[in-house]
Amino acid sequence: MNRSVKELAALVQGPNSAAMEAAQQHLDSLTKPPGSLGKLEALAVRLAGITGEVKPSFSERAVIVMAADHGVCEEGISAFPAEVTPQMVMNFLAGGAAVNVLARQAGAEVKCVDIGVNAEMSHPELVSRKVRFGTANMAKGPAMSREEAEAAILTGAAVVEEAVAQGASLFVTGEMGIGNTTASAAIVSALTDISPLDSVGRGTGINDERLRHKITVVESALRTNQPDPADPVDVLAKVGGLEIAGLTGVILASAANHCPVVIDGFISSAAALLAQRIAPESSNYMISSHVSHEQGHALLLQELGLTPMLHMDMRLGEGTGGVLALHLVDAACSIMKEMATFESAGVSSAEPTEVKKPTAAEVQ
Amino acid sequence: MNRSVKELAALVQGPNSAAMEAAQQHLDSLTKPPGSLGKLEALAVRLAGITGEVKPSFSERAVIVMAADHGVCEEGISAFPAEVTPQMVMNFLAGGAAVNVLARQAGAEVKCVDIGVNAEMSHPELVSRKVRFGTANMAKGPAMSREEAEAAILTGAAVVEEAVAQGASLFVTGEMGIGNTTASAAIVSALTDISPLDSVGRGTGINDERLRHKITVVESALRTNQPDPADPVDVLAKVGGLEIAGLTGVILASAANHCPVVIDGFISSAAALLAQRIAPESSNYMISSHVSHEQGHALLLQELGLTPMLHMDMRLGEGTGGVLALHLVDAACSIMKEMATFESAGVSSAEPTEVKKPTAAEVQ
Repeated sequence: MNRSVKELAALVQGPNSAAMEAAQQHLDSLTKPPGSLGKLEALAVRLAGITGEVKPSFSERAVIVMAADHGVCEEGISAFPAEVTPQMVMNFLAGGAAVNVLARQAGAEVKCVDIGVNAEMSHPELVSRKVRFGTANMAKGPAMSREEAEAAILTGAAVVEEAVAQGASLFVTGEMGIGNTTASAAIVSALTDISPLDSVGRGTGINDERLRHKITVVESALRTNQPDPADPVDVLAKVGGLEIAGLTGVILASAANHCPVVIDGFISSAAALLAQRIAPESSNYMISSHVSHEQGHALLLQELGLTPMLHMDMRLGEGTGGVLALHLVDAACSIMKEMATFESAGVSSAEPTEVKKPTAAEVQ
Repeated sequence: MNRSVKELAALVQGPNSAAMEAAQQHLDSLTKPPGSLGKLEALAVRLAGITGEVKPSFSERAVIVMAADHGVCEEGISAFPAEVTPQMVMNFLAGGAAVNVLARQAGAEVKCVDIGVNAEMSHPELVSRKVRFGTANMAKGPAMSREEAEAAILTGAAVVEEAVAQGASLFVTGEMGIGNTTASAAIVSALTDISPLDSVGRGTGINDERLRHKITVVESALRTNQPDPADPVDVLAKVGGLEIAGLTGVILASAANHCPVVIDGFISSAAALLAQRIAPESSNYMISSHVSHEQGHALLLQELGLTPMLHMDMRLGEGTGGVLALHLVDAACSIMKEMATFESAGVSSAEPTEVKKPTAAEVQ
């Protein structure tokens, strides 16, 4: 893997506008008032732009769950102990976590990647790509080196490329890493005008006191490391996380391979922001799934120009909100493939100029 | 069918609170921070209250599409001609409409009921239960008689009861009827403090001028008929519709049979409001699906105490938003059945008092 992140970014092209136009035309011929399927129609057009096909389908899909640990946990910013990261990885591999349940329902494979868990891990189904044993404590210095951040991005990209070679054409971002809402908040506040007061949330469910502490930890990490907002890889290295870097690579490689990538919650969206800053066209390949209960997520989605479809008040991560939205991707595809047109069904349309049957004009 | 609507309403009982408590306890034992699956957890608890089972499942489900015409169409309140109602019914029966596509994806049967289409209709798959050939023009007098409104409610109930006898245990409300957002707005404004300025929307997509006209038509229908807000059947008869009455019966019978009923958009929600006013406990059996683009829908859902999960900007009706939410009902069921517990997966939980492994206390 001798390429650079810059080379990866250069592979990301704009969407196919001819396919988008053709998709819009097809939608307008279907038996429904124009635009009445709302975001499902916008999604169908987006999928055409991504794939170049007016009626795409995605039979093989994978949720890539990147797992890593965070040195900043020693500051006491989470309600859960750091040991939960490797424990949950084993739960993913055993198929018992929420993301496994929802992925089975959506016909998606769960690929669990150890990109930086702070424990020796081994399991036949685990994708072992550890870049380092967790990050360093960003409250005291950089979370990782620039080289490590780049390596983690390229690792994420490689996981997607292998899956594409095996037939996957639709991806969902997922993650596990106790402490990763803290790193995500720091990334968001480093790259945007969103202050830590707004980017820092309760994560898995911390109390008021710990929330205040978490905000000061993010503020101090930003002060200590002075990440350069014009250099997303610098931000990622100084205040990010290995799983966030991995997801950034997942998103960039999905875009480079003309595959839609469904963005899960707050942490995944922080990775999406990094991907957008590294390769702006990559945002055309992102499918927004849900807006989470984590307080910074709605603002972050706005920053990304993404509109969520699901409002579930979820705050679990893992990719759970993302896999739940695969159903909507499938729905958009089915609408394009299976719905009758006004003409084929003999249904009168709204505008007299488009009406297929003579009696239409009489009534209105 | 010699019973009355009052007798039907008396069959609706409150939810099973013991099952709800047991469901909540089970949810809290699963490998996730408590409450982190948000509305999916609330849905799982609600389903337990409805069915009395902690881990229910719903293999047979039906979307009941009630179709009828509206005399008020002669006032020119829709962008589509009234002839579209029977045309779309034929489209439903041929399987080419949006609701058919989305119902197939959700494994739901589409039962299309002619409860008041203003045309002779015949098709082997059509459930023919016409109460009358469309309503009268409510701008000039009552839409129908009280007896017809009661008959239409009981017809809807009978359709559900037949489906339950054949094994269905989960229902979705759907409808077709050019002009029915006008009738729904009148119902909502008659029963609540929501003024026609807020309850009347663009329906299938009317322009500003026609929207202003639609508001005055609703105002004049309310003035002319003086429906009694304390008497929901009076409101339904005077300013309602036959398909709306049918759906009211669908909802009441679902509740009486301990079956969840997924409420689609604005028109279905107007029927839900009527059901709630007829039998207040029926709202415990309603599953909110989406908030539509129709302007009064969000206010109406608030009035019903329902929180939508999907924000799709849809405004098609037919049951499309409702069938799209069946996936979320299934997801809630799968979470209850398939997720590992903290204990079974050997994962540490958040609170030291609940921690299963000794190392947890050391880290936090």
